[in-house]
Amino acid sequence: MGSTFGSLFRLSTWGESHGAGIGVVVDGCPPRLSLSEDDLQNDLDRRRPGQSRLTTQRDEADRVEILSGVFEGLTTGAPIAVLVRNDDARSGAYDHLKDLYRPSHADFTYDAKYGHRDWRGGGRSSARETIGRVAAGAIARRLLADHAGIEVLGWVSRIHDVVANIDTAAVTRSKVEADATRCPDPLAATAMTEAINAARLDGNSLGGIVTCVARGVPVGLGSPVFDRLEADLAKGMLSLPAAKGFDVGSGFEAVSMTGRQHNDAFVPGPDGPMTATNHSGGVQGGISTGGDVVFRVAFKPTATIASTQDTVTVDNVATSLEARGRHDPCVLPRAVPMVEAMALVVLADHWLLQQSIDVLPT
Amino acid sequence: MGSTFGSLFRLSTWGESHGAGIGVVVDGCPPRLSLSEDDLQNDLDRRRPGQSRLTTQRDEADRVEILSGVFEGLTTGAPIAVLVRNDDARSGAYDHLKDLYRPSHADFTYDAKYGHRDWRGGGRSSARETIGRVAAGAIARRLLADHAGIEVLGWVSRIHDVVANIDTAAVTRSKVEADATRCPDPLAATAMTEAINAARLDGNSLGGIVTCVARGVPVGLGSPVFDRLEADLAKGMLSLPAAKGFDVGSGFEAVSMTGRQHNDAFVPGPDGPMTATNHSGGVQGGISTGGDVVFRVAFKPTATIASTQDTVTVDNVATSLEARGRHDPCVLPRAVPMVEAMALVVLADHWLLQQSIDVLPT
Amino acid sequence: MGSTFGSLFRLSTWGESHGAGIGVVVDGCPPRLSLSEDDLQNDLDRRRPGQSRLTTQRDEADRVEILSGVFEGLTTGAPIAVLVRNDDARSGAYDHLKDLYRPSHADFTYDAKYGHRDWRGGGRSSARETIGRVAAGAIARRLLADHAGIEVLGWVSRIHDVVANIDTAAVTRSKVEADATRCPDPLAATAMTEAINAARLDGNSLGGIVTCVARGVPVGLGSPVFDRLEADLAKGMLSLPAAKGFDVGSGFEAVSMTGRQHNDAFVPGPDGPMTATNHSGGVQGGISTGGDVVFRVAFKPTATIASTQDTVTVDNVATSLEARGRHDPCVLPRAVPMVEAMALVVLADHWLLQQSIDVLPT
Amino acid sequence: MGSTFGSLFRLSTWGESHGAGIGVVVDGCPPRLSLSEDDLQNDLDRRRPGQSRLTTQRDEADRVEILSGVFEGLTTGAPIAVLVRNDDARSGAYDHLKDLYRPSHADFTYDAKYGHRDWRGGGRSSARETIGRVAAGAIARRLLADHAGIEVLGWVSRIHDVVANIDTAAVTRSKVEADATRCPDPLAATAMTEAINAARLDGNSLGGIVTCVARGVPVGLGSPVFDRLEADLAKGMLSLPAAKGFDVGSGFEAVSMTGRQHNDAFVPGPDGPMTATNHSGGVQGGISTGGDVVFRVAFKPTATIASTQDTVTVDNVATSLEARGRHDPCVLPRAVPMVEAMALVVLADHWLLQQSIDVLPT
Repeated sequence: MGSTFGSLFRLSTWGESHGAGIGVVVDGCPPRLSLSEDDLQNDLDRRRPGQSRLTTQRDEADRVEILSGVFEGLTTGAPIAVLVRNDDARSGAYDHLKDLYRPSHADFTYDAKYGHRDWRGGGRSSARETIGRVAAGAIARRLLADHAGIEVLGWVSRIHDVVANIDTAAVTRSKVEADATRCPDPLAATAMTEAINAARLDGNSLGGIVTCVARGVPVGLGSPVFDRLEADLAKGMLSLPAAKGFDVGSGFEAVSMTGRQHNDAFVPGPDGPMTATNHSGGVQGGISTGGDVVFRVAFKPTATIASTQDTVTVDNVATSLEARGRHDPCVLPRAVPMVEAMALVVLADHWLLQQSIDVLPT
Repeated sequence: MGSTFGSLFRLSTWGESHGAGIGVVVDGCPPRLSLSEDDLQNDLDRRRPGQSRLTTQRDEADRVEILSGVFEGLTTGAPIAVLVRNDDARSGAYDHLKDLYRPSHADFTYDAKYGHRDWRGGGRSSARETIGRVAAGAIARRLLADHAGIEVLGWVSRIHDVVANIDTAAVTRSKVEADATRCPDPLAATAMTEAINAARLDGNSLGGIVTCVARGVPVGLGSPVFDRLEADLAKGMLSLPAAKGFDVGSGFEAVSMTGRQHNDAFVPGPDGPMTATNHSGGVQGGISTGGDVVFRVAFKPTATIASTQDTVTVDNVATSLEARGRHDPCVLPRAVPMVEAMALVVLADHWLLQQSIDVLPT
Repeated sequence: MGSTFGSLFRLSTWGESHGAGIGVVVDGCPPRLSLSEDDLQNDLDRRRPGQSRLTTQRDEADRVEILSGVFEGLTTGAPIAVLVRNDDARSGAYDHLKDLYRPSHADFTYDAKYGHRDWRGGGRSSARETIGRVAAGAIARRLLADHAGIEVLGWVSRIHDVVANIDTAAVTRSKVEADATRCPDPLAATAMTEAINAARLDGNSLGGIVTCVARGVPVGLGSPVFDRLEADLAKGMLSLPAAKGFDVGSGFEAVSMTGRQHNDAFVPGPDGPMTATNHSGGVQGGISTGGDVVFRVAFKPTATIASTQDTVTVDNVATSLEARGRHDPCVLPRAVPMVEAMALVVLADHWLLQQSIDVLPT
Repeated sequence: MGSTFGSLFRLSTWGESHGAGIGVVVDGCPPRLSLSEDDLQNDLDRRRPGQSRLTTQRDEADRVEILSGVFEGLTTGAPIAVLVRNDDARSGAYDHLKDLYRPSHADFTYDAKYGHRDWRGGGRSSARETIGRVAAGAIARRLLADHAGIEVLGWVSRIHDVVANIDTAAVTRSKVEADATRCPDPLAATAMTEAINAARLDGNSLGGIVTCVARGVPVGLGSPVFDRLEADLAKGMLSLPAAKGFDVGSGFEAVSMTGRQHNDAFVPGPDGPMTATNHSGGVQGGISTGGDVVFRVAFKPTATIASTQDTVTVDNVATSLEARGRHDPCVLPRAVPMVEAMALVVLADHWLLQQSIDVLPT
């Protein structure tokens, strides 16, 4: 339990940060989709540490291998198993973590829950687990791009107190990828870079916000009760390491608005009703409106910091944790492909589900 | 699909606002739990319209009937079916809604998704659907209170620009229920009442925030990957009508903090490690820490307002919607039992799941 | 857990034989299906006791009420809740069962599993629980008949040592319904009637076999690994009360054949390959071939007999159970609609699932 | 969909017979279980081709690698990923199968369902897929043996017309493994060997029956409606390649018995009620009685035979299939560990589920 996500487009991840490898099985991808290892590698490289000076300098090549489900360049409808071997498992570097609990990591809760813990790195709660998600997201991206006309694009909209000024409708992937911060506002990106570098020098870390838009989502995806599109997005996002909050459309800002301000008036559109504004964030009653689906995810500052911290041993005795190792002072740039991946998987799932709902003639 | 929530403690709701009734089937409640219709009625009365002058004056008695799964005052392990008949179905009052789409309701997306819609009220996306959730939550509350020592308590912490000042650790149910706003800060409650009344007179509506705490949650509930405790809470909360955002612990505020500020140092506690602060909100790596689980849910202003609005007909022609009917200018006081219900169900599910994880000797 | 069946076309049954009522919630039925209570009542009447002199003389009217999910004669895509009140709950008739365990009933295993048992009748394991299944099957029947061209037809092919001689390809519903035994071979039907009546006079009971065929099943339904069409049929059938065995196509007879005899040679058909024989029973590798899906279900003799039996009390003391009450000496005629119902639900589920697999262009 | 089995003890298999490898992910195994690769290899060696002169002479070493979920010899509660590389993928040997459909294989139905097929061997419907099941079964075996006192033992009880005479209560694993047929009746084993060898010389194949017993199953496993223990066993067994039938306890023989003969009278036992006979096969109302759970699985003769067969091309033109390659004339000896594996997984799932039902005090 707990390592599977999705209903029709379903991913099951496995693997620890310092075990033999990390992987994912994607079941339910339709047959006849054109797919290659390069499709996956591209997104994995965006997630990978060491891709820029902003991120951790661990050099994880993260070469992906598709073990099943693809034959002669097309999916077969069988489960797609993906494997990334752990190459850089210098587990000796973690010996000092065996007998104490790192603050705001999962070390303590793991021990309490499972009673037996792989203390080398974060085990299943390591960010390395997201390799499987990003690989699955890349498959969903290919499916949605080629056959549903859906594009999912995320970016860093805030780091600590640096807030970017971005036109959600105009932002493009090339603008996002133009800077190592993955912030498409160049002025903000420069300030973010400075803030991250300052935090690194200070042995500290920073959090931030990823904003994500899904364009081309057809009207009708999502269900009105528990499996609302925004509910499944919320679950996906809060399942990411370090995520602390999610909102959609107006989100927490809706609280400051009145109903007259917030309601999205319908206007006649060329292909049917459209909304004049999009405070709904592309979902009404849990179902997509055909407008852009827009949401935000808040990430806390990285828990691993290069400063001494108070903590306790596994025997509940006060001690201190000295800093060492190679870590990100800010996870935000690498969080972008993770956010996109979970959104892609949610949308692929609902898009496939919609096929069974559309089956009878109108 | 879409009307079932939970894995081991599983609820399936059914019913439309203006059909024969509303109900829920709860499967997976353990046998031998003391349970009566009064246990359910209590929470249903807190959800019910007409309970105070602040809420809609529709008089829905919402008398609950347990149809199965309880014998001689104890659960049997069989599915518990709950029925609330719709007594006040004056569907004629909705005739004017047959041919147009109300802004920021699910009318349009329903038609687009399903092609056939019960246009009397909101169908499945009506707040009346939450009767089933609140009934299921009441069962979970009984289970967790009697056998796990877990208490879930929600309150209104903000309406529009009125922000309450509340000590999360000290707030009690009696303080929450002391005012019709369900805000336990008396000064704020007075201001909220004024704001709601002003919005009503103005034909407008307001949103707000519900804060919720779960106390007594044992360390170890939740899974480290997709089924994180906060991820399941996020899904449950974003599945509520009008919910736009969710955060846990420090939440969106975490963005303004550094890692040194945010990390919760461990200190030796009498029964094991404890955290000196609780920015984590009672979850680390998706698993409960033993501290209070604290989260917030943002609700938009009610979509139904007593003002004329621009919209389109079902044939995509511009028209206007005149206001009529009886509606809440602010859903927040009634949202409190809904938020509690979803939290109770999530916690019951994870508490039951933990039994299968704890099975081997340590 | 345990009261839900199916993935996309999903039914959840609830209710005890002597509680307030019996019901089912069907989630996932596509919108815009023409459906009425009469559609359900027809199959429920075939399941009902008292329908002929062969079955128990309890007079259960079993009037069905659709509580949700249907509006103006068409399904809406929302869950369809169905309720049948228990009218004839003379529970006093069961007082003598409170303190002992009936042989080959679920009384003992219920007490052992749940520790608290509704001892009036069989609780959840009563044949009355199948009302919900038959109602769900009737919905699936309507869906498959109107939109997929699939017909499911069952009949009694054997009772005790009376074996019917039936041409599976030629049998029709009118032939099956022509006799109260639901055996379409008139000579065998007469002998079966005599055998049942003799068993009744003797205070005994008989078992038998239901054979079922699904015609018009398109090629391609079912999955190659766990969710094979025959695996899901097997689960559905073995979940019926008193079922002891299942086989498909050649079934247990396959054991006596060699590969040369058993293999179904392909021959060119007008619309694609066909099999010259159908030992496969319409499934190969778990996937439908386009040929008739044919399977058999074995039912044990009814456990309730009008004879004194040795047993024990709930305190594990030897005692004897005197016969009383009104019961079927042979459940087979009433089992036919139950078998059909489970087959219909399995086929509807796989037919809907196939929509998500067929989504990409070939 | 379709490659996952189980609820709390859940396996997901992946891999094709001639792809990179075969694997399984087991999620839900409790932490702190002692487990090694040797535990898995033992059962895999019993499944493996080439283990005796009776089975195919393909030499598949099938060396297993545990990639995750085990740390320092104990499970961690994380998903256990298992990989077996395909070493012997001489796919050129299958070139002649690219353009035609083998009778009673899944070639045709795959093409019809998926529209794109790995024609090298059977793809997902290959018996090689069962490597993942057997590995998962070995994990379940370790769990049940070490912590629940449950033993699962299968054997070949019939091949073609050779029927073994076996005392279900007395048979042991060493008697089963004493002969390459896995039939613990030495006389029958000799006759079976002769029959298999004769079929091989004749270019033919044989089917048979595997009988399986689960001992030490505590009273109370299984649910009374859809998730009956026998229903889940039936699904598991019918999901095995070449399986055509399943029955439990008296099974199809129950049809020839009367209720007085078939009912299992209760008698006082030392630890509670016991049944004097076991026609129920250890399950009543879907729930285990504490007696031996006994069931049978019928397997058809192997579809691959060393004889020329009529068939059609992928373009629906009549052709003939020449025999070649290395195949089992009888799959029964290798089916024993597959049957055991599915039974072990079903029992582990229900045993874990029972923990959440037993949670309240009696």
